[in-house]
Amino acid sequence: MPPRRLHPPRSPRRAHEAWILEHLRRQGRASRAELVEATGLSRATVSALTADLLAAGKVVVTKTAAPGRVGRTPQSLSLDPAAGLVLGLDFGHTRVAVVAADAAHEIVGSASRPYPRTTPWETRRAIAVRLARKVLDGQPGATLAAVGIGIAGSIGDRPAVVGAIREAFTGAFGVPVRTDNNARLAGLAESVWGAARGIPDVLYVRLSSGVGGAVILDGRVHRGRGDAAGEFGHVCLDPAGPLCRCGRRGCLECYVRVETVLAHGGVTTVSGLAEALDRDDQRARGVLAEAGQRIGLVLAGAGSVLDVSTAVLGGDLAALGEHLVRPVRQTLARHLPLDEVDDVTVRTAELGDLDGALGGVALVLHDPSITFTGSLPPRLTGSA
Amino acid sequence: MPPRRLHPPRSPRRAHEAWILEHLRRQGRASRAELVEATGLSRATVSALTADLLAAGKVVVTKTAAPGRVGRTPQSLSLDPAAGLVLGLDFGHTRVAVVAADAAHEIVGSASRPYPRTTPWETRRAIAVRLARKVLDGQPGATLAAVGIGIAGSIGDRPAVVGAIREAFTGAFGVPVRTDNNARLAGLAESVWGAARGIPDVLYVRLSSGVGGAVILDGRVHRGRGDAAGEFGHVCLDPAGPLCRCGRRGCLECYVRVETVLAHGGVTTVSGLAEALDRDDQRARGVLAEAGQRIGLVLAGAGSVLDVSTAVLGGDLAALGEHLVRPVRQTLARHLPLDEVDDVTVRTAELGDLDGALGGVALVLHDPSITFTGSLPPRLTGSA
Repeated sequence: MPPRRLHPPRSPRRAHEAWILEHLRRQGRASRAELVEATGLSRATVSALTADLLAAGKVVVTKTAAPGRVGRTPQSLSLDPAAGLVLGLDFGHTRVAVVAADAAHEIVGSASRPYPRTTPWETRRAIAVRLARKVLDGQPGATLAAVGIGIAGSIGDRPAVVGAIREAFTGAFGVPVRTDNNARLAGLAESVWGAARGIPDVLYVRLSSGVGGAVILDGRVHRGRGDAAGEFGHVCLDPAGPLCRCGRRGCLECYVRVETVLAHGGVTTVSGLAEALDRDDQRARGVLAEAGQRIGLVLAGAGSVLDVSTAVLGGDLAALGEHLVRPVRQTLARHLPLDEVDDVTVRTAELGDLDGALGGVALVLHDPSITFTGSLPPRLTGSA
Repeated sequence: MPPRRLHPPRSPRRAHEAWILEHLRRQGRASRAELVEATGLSRATVSALTADLLAAGKVVVTKTAAPGRVGRTPQSLSLDPAAGLVLGLDFGHTRVAVVAADAAHEIVGSASRPYPRTTPWETRRAIAVRLARKVLDGQPGATLAAVGIGIAGSIGDRPAVVGAIREAFTGAFGVPVRTDNNARLAGLAESVWGAARGIPDVLYVRLSSGVGGAVILDGRVHRGRGDAAGEFGHVCLDPAGPLCRCGRRGCLECYVRVETVLAHGGVTTVSGLAEALDRDDQRARGVLAEAGQRIGLVLAGAGSVLDVSTAVLGGDLAALGEHLVRPVRQTLARHLPLDEVDDVTVRTAELGDLDGALGGVALVLHDPSITFTGSLPPRLTGSA
């Protein structure tokens, strides 16, 4: 094993405080009991530390999470929403989306702008920076802490594109900028706020023009050495299968990208396919059964190797809902080495078109190297 | 994301010392420069801390690792070999193997005993405890720190078998005992000492009567929520394929378990198959090409999803060497989404029949909850 950097040291008290702040930063809000469970600290220590953090204004009491609950309701704590905003962006093939969230995980603004598929990166960057400024202008007096950006396509082998985006945002806002593949960020967002909320290990597949995805293990995106993990679309189902645009044969993407599925179904739109499925059209059902089996087989392979039995299906095809989920779930349940078929969870994504941008927010909130609360980031108005 | 326990706090100096000790415990030996790289501490801090550790006798200077090197050779440090022994055991289907290693990763003793496949667990346990005592008797005066045990077959769903083994060894030796699936431990051992030494992310497949394996990510075994990760043998290649003994169809194991491969090759032993391959027998070559492609496809699927391009092939079929490696490597290089085919590494396992037992040693050395150096574990002679 190669050397591995370990975490920098801190005094116990500072370390305890940091755990509490990190947990709130990742979760948005938590009760004191949840903080005890999450940190392994005693109830007394958590009480003392949260009292200090409340007094210092680093943490606030938020409205209670369980309406209608009888008896004493536990208080939820969160980071001070005024500690700063986080921007999440998603550069898709045909639009950029922006979300602004506060430190308590509350979404305070969002917007998106379409652009033609052929738009050069320079133009896309300019559109995105303008849009981000506009979203932030809706939050006068707020402080921007960091920006997390999702980008369509592979990240590792396009350093120039990624670098220019980072520079543009660092230059415009003067805060730390983080980037990742947007399908991976969409998966992360689903695991934090969406269909797989509260489930630590998740396989996320995005079914659109391209087929990508994310592997979430223990609540964290698995990136891989070459920053290329999550390539469900290019798992080979048949070495003698159709030629894929990646140059190989029989990749999952050849069979289940949205254009191929629509063509096989004899329709031109996903809603057209959904209508056909709703009226139990035989051709459409056959197409979905086949696509679902292929997606399920690829998920079962990864699930067997990783011992993961939760899958979230995102992208354009997710609009088909149960029509898509059913055959995937059946295949997964049949091919995962599990005793309990009930252990298999397959859901469609819940976060819609903002998924990638929300993932950008999660990327930043989960990155402990970004100083958030307690720091003095530049005032938005000073840098925008 | 669910709550996640964080590490217990320590003072900075104690933490730094612990990092150095942990690194040496995982790596066996390291130069001061390697410790600087691994811990992120300054050269001066590492020098001061190692001087103290040397003075306290917790760390020793070992013989230098690079013979024939010109100029000043850097000293290697390791934990004090006298800090204690670790026992590794591997309960296979037909034998138990035992390895004893010291804290400097030096193997000081080993042995194995065959038993019939039908041997009840009670008898296997008794044989293993006797054999372990015998290996330790060869190290008079040595102190046993912990025992790591590999067990054939799945671990998660046989708590009684696993629990009885743990009890037998805790009772006999009075030290901490850790258990895991033996194929996973074999993979861990290959990544620490064997074919994938120095490579952080590795897919390990064990090809014997059963087909199992291990996923090593960042130098650690990925276990999965249900403790069932690494099931390469039950990845489905064809939902309409032959019935597998697991009850499903078309699993990799149906096609490439050693009995099936030998039968297809028209031979009865692996060495017979190797001879046929050495004389370029067409039938044998065809069998290997097909098996290699199937193994490669399953590895490529996992590799695409995890961004891992190193595979180690262990178990009985590993004796076929390049005859097996070549078709697996070809398939993997063809189906992994990589630009550089050279990035693909496929090797046969190097550690032979002691792999699982060595993995037991690694399991214990990598477990920070086991106190090793600086503790006062019970004297072996007092408890055995």
